[in-house]
Amino acid sequence: MLTKISLSGKLALFADHWSPKVVADLNDSHVKLAKVKGEFVWHSHEHEDELFLVIAGQLIIELRDGAVTLDPGEFVVVPKGVEHRPVAAEEVHLMLIEPKAILHTGGVDDPRRIEEWERL
Amino acid sequence: MLTKISLSGKLALFADHWSPKVVADLNDSHVKLAKVKGEFVWHSHEHEDELFLVIAGQLIIELRDGAVTLDPGEFVVVPKGVEHRPVAAEEVHLMLIEPKAILHTGGVDDPRRIEEWERL
Repeated sequence: MLTKISLSGKLALFADHWSPKVVADLNDSHVKLAKVKGEFVWHSHEHEDELFLVIAGQLIIELRDGAVTLDPGEFVVVPKGVEHRPVAAEEVHLMLIEPKAILHTGGVDDPRRIEEWERL
Repeated sequence: MLTKISLSGKLALFADHWSPKVVADLNDSHVKLAKVKGEFVWHSHEHEDELFLVIAGQLIIELRDGAVTLDPGEFVVVPKGVEHRPVAAEEVHLMLIEPKAILHTGGVDDPRRIEEWERL
């Protein structure tokens, strides 16, 4: 039998920021959930597109040529190679879908960088 | 600049059932939105996992060994090779993520089968 995933149920299981949790495998990608607040680092992913779907709160994805503001029920795909910086004035709950091989910060050195993804 | 996608905004643009619309490219996959009502055909996808996230309504994914009932904010990944049949007593709004190469009905002959994906 298959197990369904409740976004709110999984989000209730953790509180740490900038530390996405893997909740499902999807072909060569992971489905992850994250809570974020503040400014992340500028980075890009050489080979991977990355989907950001906002579940709660308001996320700004800063780009070198502007910014995209995402409210709940809105998503954006940041294409491979595009520099971006997620920024959240208040806590934001996110669903991310990205290839399993992706580096959290695109390889940029940052204390929040994750080397191994936690599963929930 | 990147374009954000509003799930409700895109869903407002169509009314037909069992006819998923491509709203974004994500690596080798499509992000699709669909409205469904009634019973689809039993099928499987030999090589592709398929994500079903319910946005509105209640979707039952029947499996040969049971069923999964999805309410809004819940998703399931149907792994490659697993026979399934989506069923919706009332209209359901869905987000789907699946490889671009996927066949709508897994190749099963059905009047609702789509050969070419429409984009919104």
